[in-house]
Amino acid sequence: MPNIATTSRRRDDVLALPIRLDRAIRNQSQQVHSALRAGIVDGLLAPGLRLPSTRGLAEQLGVRRNAIVAAYEALLSDGLVEARHGAGTYVAAALPAPETAAPVAELDIRIPPRRPFALGFTLVDPALLKRLAAASRRRIAQAAPDELGYGDPRGSLHLRNEVAHYLAANRGVRCDPSCILIVSGTQHGLRLCIDALLAPGDAVWFEDPGYVASRHTLSTTVAKLVPVPVDGEGIVVTAGEKADARARAAYVTPSHQFPTGVPMSMARRIALLDWARSAGAYVFEDDYDSEYRFAGPPLTALAGIGGERVIYLGTFGKTLFAGLRLGYLVVPPELVARVVAARAAQDRFPPVFMQEALADLMADGVIAAHMRRMRPRYRQARDVVAEALVKHAKGSLQLSAPAQGLHLLATLPPGAPKGAARLIRERAGIECRLLSDARIVQRGPDGFILGYSGFAAKDLADAARRLGRAAQDVLRDSRPPRG
Amino acid sequence: MPNIATTSRRRDDVLALPIRLDRAIRNQSQQVHSALRAGIVDGLLAPGLRLPSTRGLAEQLGVRRNAIVAAYEALLSDGLVEARHGAGTYVAAALPAPETAAPVAELDIRIPPRRPFALGFTLVDPALLKRLAAASRRRIAQAAPDELGYGDPRGSLHLRNEVAHYLAANRGVRCDPSCILIVSGTQHGLRLCIDALLAPGDAVWFEDPGYVASRHTLSTTVAKLVPVPVDGEGIVVTAGEKADARARAAYVTPSHQFPTGVPMSMARRIALLDWARSAGAYVFEDDYDSEYRFAGPPLTALAGIGGERVIYLGTFGKTLFAGLRLGYLVVPPELVARVVAARAAQDRFPPVFMQEALADLMADGVIAAHMRRMRPRYRQARDVVAEALVKHAKGSLQLSAPAQGLHLLATLPPGAPKGAARLIRERAGIECRLLSDARIVQRGPDGFILGYSGFAAKDLADAARRLGRAAQDVLRDSRPPRG
Repeated sequence: MPNIATTSRRRDDVLALPIRLDRAIRNQSQQVHSALRAGIVDGLLAPGLRLPSTRGLAEQLGVRRNAIVAAYEALLSDGLVEARHGAGTYVAAALPAPETAAPVAELDIRIPPRRPFALGFTLVDPALLKRLAAASRRRIAQAAPDELGYGDPRGSLHLRNEVAHYLAANRGVRCDPSCILIVSGTQHGLRLCIDALLAPGDAVWFEDPGYVASRHTLSTTVAKLVPVPVDGEGIVVTAGEKADARARAAYVTPSHQFPTGVPMSMARRIALLDWARSAGAYVFEDDYDSEYRFAGPPLTALAGIGGERVIYLGTFGKTLFAGLRLGYLVVPPELVARVVAARAAQDRFPPVFMQEALADLMADGVIAAHMRRMRPRYRQARDVVAEALVKHAKGSLQLSAPAQGLHLLATLPPGAPKGAARLIRERAGIECRLLSDARIVQRGPDGFILGYSGFAAKDLADAARRLGRAAQDVLRDSRPPRG
Repeated sequence: MPNIATTSRRRDDVLALPIRLDRAIRNQSQQVHSALRAGIVDGLLAPGLRLPSTRGLAEQLGVRRNAIVAAYEALLSDGLVEARHGAGTYVAAALPAPETAAPVAELDIRIPPRRPFALGFTLVDPALLKRLAAASRRRIAQAAPDELGYGDPRGSLHLRNEVAHYLAANRGVRCDPSCILIVSGTQHGLRLCIDALLAPGDAVWFEDPGYVASRHTLSTTVAKLVPVPVDGEGIVVTAGEKADARARAAYVTPSHQFPTGVPMSMARRIALLDWARSAGAYVFEDDYDSEYRFAGPPLTALAGIGGERVIYLGTFGKTLFAGLRLGYLVVPPELVARVVAARAAQDRFPPVFMQEALADLMADGVIAAHMRRMRPRYRQARDVVAEALVKHAKGSLQLSAPAQGLHLLATLPPGAPKGAARLIRERAGIECRLLSDARIVQRGPDGFILGYSGFAAKDLADAARRLGRAAQDVLRDSRPPRG
């Protein structure tokens, strides 16, 4: 039971402060030091107050006198007390005013709840987690001393080799592992590119509509975002040239434009690369969910057909799950040194163990097998949503169900009243991003960006039914009465 | 055995390109697609070339015709081929010129080898790794679906709770876990502070001599570093006020100044906090290795005595090891929202599993026990180095062996010739930072910053002997002959 010194003031040598000693912990001097320090810093023991003699406090607390001597010495080192020769120990006369630490009351940290149609969730096989867990255990338990110190800013060579193989086989991107950086995800990779390659005030083409998180990353770090419209072939390069031909970079999602789902045509790809070459600009290719293509193999990445201006951003956040915090950056050889230097002034290098564990799973074919198992499940999820929307919206929503990816776009018909999308989302009680959230310049009808990965088919069908019905209801209510 | 199509040109329907099919892999259409894509992108199959008929290529490769049809469709989606009605399939006429991916030849990534006296290495108990491995396996295998998606930008609440307890008991810092952010290490934490709290061009006081990596992080992101000299009480606050009283922040190492080892006196702490309050400036307290104090409990942190201007930077890189990539930031409540927003545009949130595993070990007392076991070993390492230097340098080096931390400083006597330190280091064949590396303004004699953690006592003694002798030799050689 903890000993509580009373606040009695019978004699000078009794401390007017309760000190709880936990007898189970051996280091009593440290406990006394902590308690006195807290009392002084809090102002309970006022500047100039004489502390009890070491003998007196030892008796009061029932501990060895040496423990009190050590505690007082530590307070002296801290500068919290002063020893006056022959006169004892006093709380230091000059101390900062005490403060009270307040918790953070109203912090706006919105992590979307796991329900349809939030983006960023995935299905994760318990069997896969088990394999990852075993690989992680093995990698940590068998870590060599050299693996525990500072590492290569690009990350594990083992994982970079596996990523290079994966990209060559699946994305048509051939690169040397020396040009790959392992990062936390696509936003982290984008941020490194910004730090390394752009200066404040540089203009950057941005797909409109486009990916909200990347817009945030770019707009809070680079001064000038140039919205460039997207049509059925992807980013309209001529519009970009008209808006700002001298931009320093373009951020694009060529395999599966976010949120429209359009793949960038070869003509546009060529036009974009031509512009980048002539302007000396960079193309940031965010290839965020190209792995899950439901018809045929994945489209070749832009980095696979004209790499010297293209920085490729990939992630395991969609193939596996976001909480893994692993993605990668493929950088043209002549830019690697600059991106590596930018990392030195940021997070330095990525954590070792999960990289090695993931590389083990890739080398064993476990990740490829996981993707093969997930692909039909995501296709089914897409179909469940699309079918329920078609059935229940009865024409109130237009769908573009893409051949790949983890979300689809449902748009309102032209002429739908302003604010209808927000109202429909509220009535349906669903979680989702609106198309207008992804637009910089507001034009055309609003819509719903519907993430379908990571949820049970039943929940998806239910949410889609509610969305379809709400859309019908809201549009019917808002229709002007026939004249 | 892989099938190799010959380059024979007997008839139109034979492809003039070797295609290796791995029969062990089921998806043959994808293999054909990849091979043709590579051939087109590389320019081996020139724009305008007619591809064999699907039937012809199927025969040539000995696969089902459907596989070839699917491969051609994928190439069509890629935009790499064109179908001309009734006339077959042709390599697209307009394609980017082929490129060759070059490896990165001469990248200057210097990771110090693990030998005395490199900084940043630690001793890691195999038993600790085993515990960490087991906790990691458990946390991954048992992860709930909600733990796999996007997480709190501050990191795991479980770990933040443990860090809050640790800081209260050991560093005199009391804070709510809502004010803690889990980061990759102190440099990462510092970078988040810079992004959140400073504007380009802001002046920042920096200890001179000071910690090289932090100087790099600050100077590559913030325009104006203000070198402020350090004396036996720490940073000279009056000199800082004279140099730039309106600076926006001060970066300090109060518990154990890097590299001098001096703890900041209470008078200086008060002066620094007073300046920060009146200037509205921030104090970045890097508490990088305060855990390992060899005499008495650790000194109270600056954040523990006057927190509202102080941002506290801690790391597990020294208590455990750098490759773990886990550290923390304690932010005054009113600044948390800004730092969290800065993280949204950076690496978003930290990886989940290692945080939970570490928190489990902290809760079980495993980390505290590890620190108790390591403390005498590091003290012994310090003593081995100090004794060997005293013995072999015979007065050619002055030592300041600190009461805490993982390095000591050995300085040359006043009047030692310019360049002597570099020469001595070379002759001794040791790995170490020079004091002049840590100086912004060069003044006073040079010296050696000697990291002693992470190495065997025998290797330390050997390296210290070589350093001591080299110092003696070089200084003797450079002494002017007696007149």
